[in-house]
Amino acid sequence: MAKLYFYYSAMNAGKSTTLLQSEYNYREQGMRALCFTPRIDDRAGVGRISSRIGLEREATPFTGSHDLFVDIRQAHADSPVHCVLIDEAQFLTARQVLQLTLVVDRLRIPVLCYGLRTDFRGEPFEGSKYLLAWAEEIIEIKTVCRTGRKATMNARIGEDGSQVVQGNQIDIGHHYEAVSRASFGLDRISPVGYAPPLAEPSKATDT
Amino acid sequence: MAKLYFYYSAMNAGKSTTLLQSEYNYREQGMRALCFTPRIDDRAGVGRISSRIGLEREATPFTGSHDLFVDIRQAHADSPVHCVLIDEAQFLTARQVLQLTLVVDRLRIPVLCYGLRTDFRGEPFEGSKYLLAWAEEIIEIKTVCRTGRKATMNARIGEDGSQVVQGNQIDIGHHYEAVSRASFGLDRISPVGYAPPLAEPSKATDT
Amino acid sequence: MAKLYFYYSAMNAGKSTTLLQSEYNYREQGMRALCFTPRIDDRAGVGRISSRIGLEREATPFTGSHDLFVDIRQAHADSPVHCVLIDEAQFLTARQVLQLTLVVDRLRIPVLCYGLRTDFRGEPFEGSKYLLAWAEEIIEIKTVCRTGRKATMNARIGEDGSQVVQGNQIDIGHHYEAVSRASFGLDRISPVGYAPPLAEPSKATDT
Amino acid sequence: MAKLYFYYSAMNAGKSTTLLQSEYNYREQGMRALCFTPRIDDRAGVGRISSRIGLEREATPFTGSHDLFVDIRQAHADSPVHCVLIDEAQFLTARQVLQLTLVVDRLRIPVLCYGLRTDFRGEPFEGSKYLLAWAEEIIEIKTVCRTGRKATMNARIGEDGSQVVQGNQIDIGHHYEAVSRASFGLDRISPVGYAPPLAEPSKATDT
Repeated sequence: MAKLYFYYSAMNAGKSTTLLQSEYNYREQGMRALCFTPRIDDRAGVGRISSRIGLEREATPFTGSHDLFVDIRQAHADSPVHCVLIDEAQFLTARQVLQLTLVVDRLRIPVLCYGLRTDFRGEPFEGSKYLLAWAEEIIEIKTVCRTGRKATMNARIGEDGSQVVQGNQIDIGHHYEAVSRASFGLDRISPVGYAPPLAEPSKATDT
Repeated sequence: MAKLYFYYSAMNAGKSTTLLQSEYNYREQGMRALCFTPRIDDRAGVGRISSRIGLEREATPFTGSHDLFVDIRQAHADSPVHCVLIDEAQFLTARQVLQLTLVVDRLRIPVLCYGLRTDFRGEPFEGSKYLLAWAEEIIEIKTVCRTGRKATMNARIGEDGSQVVQGNQIDIGHHYEAVSRASFGLDRISPVGYAPPLAEPSKATDT
Repeated sequence: MAKLYFYYSAMNAGKSTTLLQSEYNYREQGMRALCFTPRIDDRAGVGRISSRIGLEREATPFTGSHDLFVDIRQAHADSPVHCVLIDEAQFLTARQVLQLTLVVDRLRIPVLCYGLRTDFRGEPFEGSKYLLAWAEEIIEIKTVCRTGRKATMNARIGEDGSQVVQGNQIDIGHHYEAVSRASFGLDRISPVGYAPPLAEPSKATDT
Repeated sequence: MAKLYFYYSAMNAGKSTTLLQSEYNYREQGMRALCFTPRIDDRAGVGRISSRIGLEREATPFTGSHDLFVDIRQAHADSPVHCVLIDEAQFLTARQVLQLTLVVDRLRIPVLCYGLRTDFRGEPFEGSKYLLAWAEEIIEIKTVCRTGRKATMNARIGEDGSQVVQGNQIDIGHHYEAVSRASFGLDRISPVGYAPPLAEPSKATDT
C-alpha cells in the first residue's frame, strides 16, 4: 500500500543524507526512485541534492508552478517509478502537496518528502503545513541543540552571531541553527503574538 | 524533561478514551492532571469529556479568549500540576498553542493534546496546524476506515448518507466518518483546488 | 496490507483499555475483531479482558498449547474476521507468535498484540521477545513513574512495600509498579549479572 | 534526560549512514560522540565503520569481553562525552547492553545503538533481544524488499542465489538480502518450529 511520508526535522539533522540513502537503496534493488529539489535552493547548483557530510546527486528542479502529478505520471508511463523523493519539501505549495497525494492514491507510488516544519519565526511553511495535515506517516529525524536538548526550531543567525527575528520567510543565504523551542523564544519572535503577563504574586501566596 | 505532545487521529479513533486513561494513570500515582475541553463541544454537557465507549469526567471548559498559560500557572501555584490534558485540541487558537508551549518550557509541565488534524474539507484546524508545527512529539492514534485501509480524513456525512462538501468548518451536530484519503476525495473537495488533467495518451505511447 | 503490531508498555499504562477501544471501533464499523486473553490471567474471571478504568468484555481464553492459527483460520472460514486482538501477549509462546505471523501473512488479517516487554527481573517474556523480533510495527503506550520519568520496567512489590527480586516469572497475584529503568535497578536484579566496578580515582584525576 | 535508543532495521537500510550522520552532527556542534564497532565485523578493516553509500570513519573495536561501561566512564573522565554510538549492535552481549543502560542512567550520556533484530533464521540476536527489552526508544529505519513490501527479515543468500537455512548465526562473509516476513518463510526456517496443518475443508464448508 503506497503512502505519503513526511520526514521532518530541524536544520542540519541529515535529511538530505537520509533521502540519498533511500534513493541508493531503491537503485541497489533495481528499482527507480525519482528525486526532486526546489529550484530555489541552488546552494549545490540547480538540480542537485547535496548533504553536508559529502553525498550528492542530481535531481529534477521544481518551482511552485510545476505540476508534479503530471510530471510523475508521465515519467511512470515512460518507465515504472517505484518511489518519489522530495528534498526541501517545505517549499512545496499546497497544490503540489495535493498533487503528491494523487501520486500515492492514483498511481500507487510511495512519496517520501523531507523538510523543515517551521521557518525562522516559528511559522509553518506552506508545504509542511499540508504535509503534516495529509501524510499517512509523519516521522521525525531527531537532532540535538548545543545544550543537549532536542532541537525542533530553526534560528536564523546574523553575521554578529545573534538571532535574526525579522525578514523574509525564505532566505537561503543565511546561516541557521537548530535549537530547542525554549532557546528559540517563540513568545519573543512568533507573529502569533503572545507574551505571558507577570504572575500576580499576591494571589499565588494567598492560597 | 517536559514536552508538548500532540496525539492526533481521525474521528472516532478513541482520543478521549486515551486522554481519560492518562488522567486515571496520573491520579492513581497520586499526581494531578488538569483536563480542558472546548466549550464549543457540548455534546456531553459543558465541561465534560466523554468517550463513545462509556468513560466520562469533568474538565475545565475553555473558549478562544481563555489564557491557558495564566490559568495553569495559577492552578500550579495553588497545588502542583503534573500534567495538562487537552481534549478536542484542534479548536485551540494559535495563541493558545503558544501559551501551552510556555506551560512546557517555563512551568516544565508536560502537555498532552488530543485532536483531529483536518476538517471536513481536508483543511488543517488552527490548533492542529500549530500543534503539528511546535510539538516535540507527534503521535498517531491509528484507526481504520470501513474498507480496512488506514483512516486519516474526516468526512462529514449528510442525512442522506452522502458526503457534505460545503459548510462551516465547525459543526458539532453533524455525523462524521473516518475515511482513507483516497475515499475522502481531496481533489474533489479541497479548497486548495487541483484536479489532475486527463493523461494525453498519445505522448505516453509515443515515448 | 495486514501487519503484526506489538503495542508494548509497562504495567498499568492502559493496554487493555486501548485493546477494548480498538475492538469497539471495529464493531462500530460493522467489522469483526476476535479477542484473546491468556487463561493464566483470571483476575477478571477466565475469558474476560478488563481494564482498571472500568471497561470489560469477553474474550477467548488460551493456553500455551492452543494453536491460534488453526483457531483463527476456522473462525475466519465461518465468518470473516477483520482483526485479531491479543491481551497480555507477553504470555504467548514463541510458537504462538509464529502462528500469528501466519495469520497476518497467509490469512491477511491484522493482528494487534498488547503486552509487557519484561518481567520483574528485567528479563524479556517469551512472547514479547518474539513479538519484538517479528512485528512489523512496534508501538509504545507511554506511561510515567512516580518520579515523573518515563516508566519502562515492572517492579514486583512485596507486602512490606519493598521490591521483590526473587521468584517465579509469572505471579499474577503480586502487586506491580511501573518504574523507570534507573529506579528499577537492573544491575542489582538482572540475572544477566553485571555490577560496575568502582572507578579508579587515581586514573581519573591524573588525566 | 539521557536515553538508550535502538535504531533497528533489516540489512542494507542505511544504519551505518545514519550513525555516521549523527556523529557528524555532534561534532559539528562542538560535541564529542564515541563510536564503537564489533571487532567481528572487519569488512571495512578492524575499527572502521563504513556505509555502502561511501561514508567511513574510525571507531573503537570491541569484543564480547569488553567492559563498555568502564571504557566510556574513563573516556568521559578524560574529556566529556556527549553521546555514544554503537554500530552492528546486534553483536553486543546481554551484559554489554546492561553496561550501556548504566552509561545512560549513571553517566547520563545518551547511547544510540544501530543493529539488526534477527538472524538468517529469524532468531533474535542476543544484543537485539536485550536492546528491544530495555531501550527507552525503539525506532525503525524503514526499507523495502524487491517486491515493494516492507522488509523486516534478513535472508542469507547462497552462491546459487537461493536462501540458506542452516549454518552459524554469525557469518559476515555471506550475502544477505532484506526481505518481507512473508517472502522470508518463517514457518519453513525458524527453529521455533511450526508448520500450519492443512485446513479441514469439510468443517469449513459445513459451517
